[in-house]
Amino acid sequence: MVFYPADASRRLFLFCFLTLITLGIGIAQSRPRELGVPFGVLPTGPLNAITDVAGLKVGHFTKIEGENIRTGVTAILPHGGNLFQEKVPGAIFVGNGFGKLAGVTQVQELGTIESPIILTNTLSVAAGIEGAARYSLSQPGNESVQSVNALVGETNDGYLNDIRGMHISPAEVIQAIASAKLGAVAEGNVGAGTGTVCFGWKGGIGTSSRKLPEALGGYTVGVLVQTNFGGNLQIAGVPVGEKLGKYPFKDALEKSDGSCMIVVATDAPVLERNLERMAQRAMMGLAKTGGIASNGSGDYVIAFSTHEKLRIPYSNPSQKLLTAEYLANDDMTALFLAVIEATEEAIVNSLFAAESLTGKDGHRIEALPKEQVLEWIKDNN
Amino acid sequence: MVFYPADASRRLFLFCFLTLITLGIGIAQSRPRELGVPFGVLPTGPLNAITDVAGLKVGHFTKIEGENIRTGVTAILPHGGNLFQEKVPGAIFVGNGFGKLAGVTQVQELGTIESPIILTNTLSVAAGIEGAARYSLSQPGNESVQSVNALVGETNDGYLNDIRGMHISPAEVIQAIASAKLGAVAEGNVGAGTGTVCFGWKGGIGTSSRKLPEALGGYTVGVLVQTNFGGNLQIAGVPVGEKLGKYPFKDALEKSDGSCMIVVATDAPVLERNLERMAQRAMMGLAKTGGIASNGSGDYVIAFSTHEKLRIPYSNPSQKLLTAEYLANDDMTALFLAVIEATEEAIVNSLFAAESLTGKDGHRIEALPKEQVLEWIKDNN
Amino acid sequence: MVFYPADASRRLFLFCFLTLITLGIGIAQSRPRELGVPFGVLPTGPLNAITDVAGLKVGHFTKIEGENIRTGVTAILPHGGNLFQEKVPGAIFVGNGFGKLAGVTQVQELGTIESPIILTNTLSVAAGIEGAARYSLSQPGNESVQSVNALVGETNDGYLNDIRGMHISPAEVIQAIASAKLGAVAEGNVGAGTGTVCFGWKGGIGTSSRKLPEALGGYTVGVLVQTNFGGNLQIAGVPVGEKLGKYPFKDALEKSDGSCMIVVATDAPVLERNLERMAQRAMMGLAKTGGIASNGSGDYVIAFSTHEKLRIPYSNPSQKLLTAEYLANDDMTALFLAVIEATEEAIVNSLFAAESLTGKDGHRIEALPKEQVLEWIKDNN
Amino acid sequence: MVFYPADASRRLFLFCFLTLITLGIGIAQSRPRELGVPFGVLPTGPLNAITDVAGLKVGHFTKIEGENIRTGVTAILPHGGNLFQEKVPGAIFVGNGFGKLAGVTQVQELGTIESPIILTNTLSVAAGIEGAARYSLSQPGNESVQSVNALVGETNDGYLNDIRGMHISPAEVIQAIASAKLGAVAEGNVGAGTGTVCFGWKGGIGTSSRKLPEALGGYTVGVLVQTNFGGNLQIAGVPVGEKLGKYPFKDALEKSDGSCMIVVATDAPVLERNLERMAQRAMMGLAKTGGIASNGSGDYVIAFSTHEKLRIPYSNPSQKLLTAEYLANDDMTALFLAVIEATEEAIVNSLFAAESLTGKDGHRIEALPKEQVLEWIKDNN
Repeated sequence: MVFYPADASRRLFLFCFLTLITLGIGIAQSRPRELGVPFGVLPTGPLNAITDVAGLKVGHFTKIEGENIRTGVTAILPHGGNLFQEKVPGAIFVGNGFGKLAGVTQVQELGTIESPIILTNTLSVAAGIEGAARYSLSQPGNESVQSVNALVGETNDGYLNDIRGMHISPAEVIQAIASAKLGAVAEGNVGAGTGTVCFGWKGGIGTSSRKLPEALGGYTVGVLVQTNFGGNLQIAGVPVGEKLGKYPFKDALEKSDGSCMIVVATDAPVLERNLERMAQRAMMGLAKTGGIASNGSGDYVIAFSTHEKLRIPYSNPSQKLLTAEYLANDDMTALFLAVIEATEEAIVNSLFAAESLTGKDGHRIEALPKEQVLEWIKDNN
Repeated sequence: MVFYPADASRRLFLFCFLTLITLGIGIAQSRPRELGVPFGVLPTGPLNAITDVAGLKVGHFTKIEGENIRTGVTAILPHGGNLFQEKVPGAIFVGNGFGKLAGVTQVQELGTIESPIILTNTLSVAAGIEGAARYSLSQPGNESVQSVNALVGETNDGYLNDIRGMHISPAEVIQAIASAKLGAVAEGNVGAGTGTVCFGWKGGIGTSSRKLPEALGGYTVGVLVQTNFGGNLQIAGVPVGEKLGKYPFKDALEKSDGSCMIVVATDAPVLERNLERMAQRAMMGLAKTGGIASNGSGDYVIAFSTHEKLRIPYSNPSQKLLTAEYLANDDMTALFLAVIEATEEAIVNSLFAAESLTGKDGHRIEALPKEQVLEWIKDNN
Repeated sequence: MVFYPADASRRLFLFCFLTLITLGIGIAQSRPRELGVPFGVLPTGPLNAITDVAGLKVGHFTKIEGENIRTGVTAILPHGGNLFQEKVPGAIFVGNGFGKLAGVTQVQELGTIESPIILTNTLSVAAGIEGAARYSLSQPGNESVQSVNALVGETNDGYLNDIRGMHISPAEVIQAIASAKLGAVAEGNVGAGTGTVCFGWKGGIGTSSRKLPEALGGYTVGVLVQTNFGGNLQIAGVPVGEKLGKYPFKDALEKSDGSCMIVVATDAPVLERNLERMAQRAMMGLAKTGGIASNGSGDYVIAFSTHEKLRIPYSNPSQKLLTAEYLANDDMTALFLAVIEATEEAIVNSLFAAESLTGKDGHRIEALPKEQVLEWIKDNN
Repeated sequence: MVFYPADASRRLFLFCFLTLITLGIGIAQSRPRELGVPFGVLPTGPLNAITDVAGLKVGHFTKIEGENIRTGVTAILPHGGNLFQEKVPGAIFVGNGFGKLAGVTQVQELGTIESPIILTNTLSVAAGIEGAARYSLSQPGNESVQSVNALVGETNDGYLNDIRGMHISPAEVIQAIASAKLGAVAEGNVGAGTGTVCFGWKGGIGTSSRKLPEALGGYTVGVLVQTNFGGNLQIAGVPVGEKLGKYPFKDALEKSDGSCMIVVATDAPVLERNLERMAQRAMMGLAKTGGIASNGSGDYVIAFSTHEKLRIPYSNPSQKLLTAEYLANDDMTALFLAVIEATEEAIVNSLFAAESLTGKDGHRIEALPKEQVLEWIKDNN
């Protein structure tokens, strides 16, 4: 049983890629995989997005105003129902804790996620919490709820955005939640990725997925990233950072700081302990892109399972046992590999989708020079 | 070398207590220790308060409005300077993570606290973060700061307070910070303790301290608590909960839920790893009062050292080594004991200081029947 | 629904106690509860021992030889079958990690315990691992097993025992395992408690249990302790340490060091995350006895569920889901209380059962003066 | 300031490589870097080995006997003195805890390493502990020591070695310690790497180092690995696993299990919290080789600083403060990068050094086909 006819499909992609290059078209609109960039051995889901996990919704609120505001909000809803009443099993791994992710300890203690996951900028975490809480309190059925664990991550977009202005309001957070939908996910300079910088190039939102072969359960793993970190960029084996002259400590002032928020979703029946192990693997996917989790990086991974039968009802009667069917430890490895591959690809996707942007105080960050990178990749494969 | 002439001083206290009881006065205004309640073997500092740690300031903002608002904010400033520019070593221990404490992971990763510590109600954490961040951003010298790790704890005062109304504003958080001062600390129904409930009685803010003998370093440990938890109350060895008929599962509906925020300060030169160990001991002090860290409890301990030479400058030049003189592991035990004793006493202090209160929807929580409790304690000692 | 007619039964016990004292008999053979010492509000199981958890077996190997050898091994078998083939869900909490407990990380990663739990002295952990591994490898059905995670805890009995002599052999560890049986558990100077010291008095093995009322599930929680730690002893509210003049830092040389190994078993259907929470509560029971988790203490809690339907088969077919019915977070609090109460009582039981012992280099440790302590307790209750 | 004239030196290496290939010589004896394989941007130390950290010693004991014994011991001594009397600051990160590493919790609690670090096979951990303990107890000056925290890691060499035979004795562990020396370190099928398997090829011991530029402190980071894990091998950007048809789940029975022990040493003045962060980065280096931390993998990283002024004396007088000068958080990033690069290179070094081996039951593992791999790498660079 062979899952990946690696060389054949790779050659086909490269052919497409060459054709596209020749025609001078298609790069801006296309995702790396479609342009021939190889990413591991497991197949993707149909959208190659976190929304391949059925029922999961993503919403973006993008705020580009005047010369100095370049920020936004991205909301991930594990399912479309009332998350507080039907919590999902969840876990968090801290890759490097120089960040302000709110809601960590309750997820770790109780193993549940009970609100939309919000991503935004560092100084808008308060708006994120208030928005997520107000949304939850106002949902039908939650009239008597007095406590909500909002899960709000962030990266610092202060180079391109007037972050000290705290330009995100709770209402805008609710807007991001309300706009969440199934289907394809916009990448690049949108939502919480509007003003981010990654490996010295314009970062943003990226997403990818993997679908395990049926013999391994047929489960889907989806990843969404908000990329704002540094390191020594490597794509498909090409040392892009070195070739482009942007790598850590090339210049002693270069610190490769920044952060990466990573959200991992799966429809596999996985309880919280193994979700935490999946979360930990996402940092291995980040490492494959050349990320180094620098001192100043806030790198966090939030993982959850959307499996319907694992949901935890808020109003469970006393002494009523929860019932679950879930994967044994021994069956986790394929899901680990899926997380690693999808995280690597989601990060590269964010770099390919993000466009050059000018923001606060005239600061400008260029998009990754994709044609050059693709040419190097072609030469290597 | 004997530090504690236990029986002599205990008898003296009991004499005072008896006299006071006889005269029918003094209980309301007096703290348990003054009324003869014994608490361990180490002496207190002069104020028997967290502010015995020199330079530390506490501020309360109490909000009692109309029939339904019973809440507030308590701010603890490890020192009176610019905390962001001169961070203190800090650590956090999670006793039970059913809570929303913001700022945890950065403290754990970097070992530093860089903002005032804010305590408030569960649904006002966002206001706490925004208030603490705005305060920090606006301090002279922080004009270019783009990231602040606000440390905001909470307990749920929703029985006496209209918590869903989110009645705390960022401005009121700043007001609590601005009002912080040296000296005696108000206890009971003030600040973040305004609307809390503890062991079924009115809880609130409590504080206590210990001063180690010079042979053990002469260091001070101060503790401040926001008590809102349940269990089987025990004071000075008396099973108060059982005697008063309020203990867990007396009634199957009784869940002993709630939370306790604990702040531990010391002037001892202790780095973050050993501060975390001190924090962990605070839960042992809570246990001695009969707390059980029930499922629904958000029990967190924040510990820091105010020692001037351990401060971490924000603008440390690259490659400039930090210099520290700090206590070895072997010298930590006396500080552990100090934390345990001061935490136990701070919790009991909160119960003695808190007064009966009527709040939201006419809900009423009685103060602990202190005369009765003191009588039992007298009989036991 | 009232579970505990506190005052009535307490008076009855005190009457028994008074009678016994009057007759001058019974103390040596009796356990504290039988002598009238009160411990919380939940009822015990029939044996008031960890073996009230059905199917669990305990074995002791006691080695007292010549003048210098005072040590031993205690083995706890979660069930009587092949533990490697039928693992139990398990968790570990580190109260203070100055200890050598082997096997920690695999339990934390996989959530399973797959071998007998061995307690012994600090320098015999290697013998414990080899013994447990050889036992497991040789069990029928394990012929192809190449990896066993032995769980071996220890405390340091080096004051009474020639610990540097490493007098425990793997064969003696296997002997302890082989001798494990259902039913009453010997306490005091037996097995791994042979040479231990607790609060300055002779420590040892102690055990206790709680049986929840049917309305709370009817589950049993059992605790076994190996007591070798220090602090400010408190029993039934009496400050025994202070009254007897043995408390931390009474003398500056007094360090209250030592360790406590705690094993928590339950038949409740609890998965590993909540088992870890139960384990954490055992340190709260230790705190109630006056333990302070001094710097030099190795305080660990191992918790597991023996529930038959939660066992994890080693040879689970690929992709076969595990099925479990388990307690929700909301139903954990009664189990937390049971752990706290049973741990406190198990520790006191160890002190009452242990007898004065002379060992290495003529060192002698006295038994707790039980008559005196009981008299104080009587006066208090 | 540019530290790495990347393309120039790479071309030079490739020229050497081409010449060597042409002559058909040199591969077996040469390390990957010498053969032109590129590894990041930071320069190595003179030996490109963990022993570039001054004073650190490594010893191997290799046991190849008969047809079935293929195992050994590797000992790492942070310094040549009495480690128990002069402990080094240390930390441990658990990449995946399916392993038996002994000594973890004491390092985490106290932040110190006090014995040689021992690597061996899974079922010889007991021998490792006993050997390390006996060695420590017998060192001059340790006559009264009664407690040693042995740090013993392992991987499972049971495919090539009769692991159930437990063929390592404590005496052989002491032999490995006694043989430890400064200078070049043997790689491949030696010591604890004798019988290991990595990515389906023969694994073993590997080592590498990095030396930071003076502007970044001039510190050295050394890494030693015992490689026994699986995944999707990638070297210098070449998807070797895919090209050679050995990757996870190519065949549904393929589980990519195994383990990797990683030891990270530095002469930089880094305290335990930041050592733990360095340890965490080693897993990012492992990820770059294609490792996936499969369910069955025991992946652990032990990190320590050998800086003389950070040593912690066992016999520190009471109340005597420790004095340290140490790196601030902000200066850690270059060390993180050094760990990532050196770990990646050490793993590849182990694969290049290891030779095909036949062992237990005639099992045979081939060496990585280096010529083929080098040719692909040449094509890519």
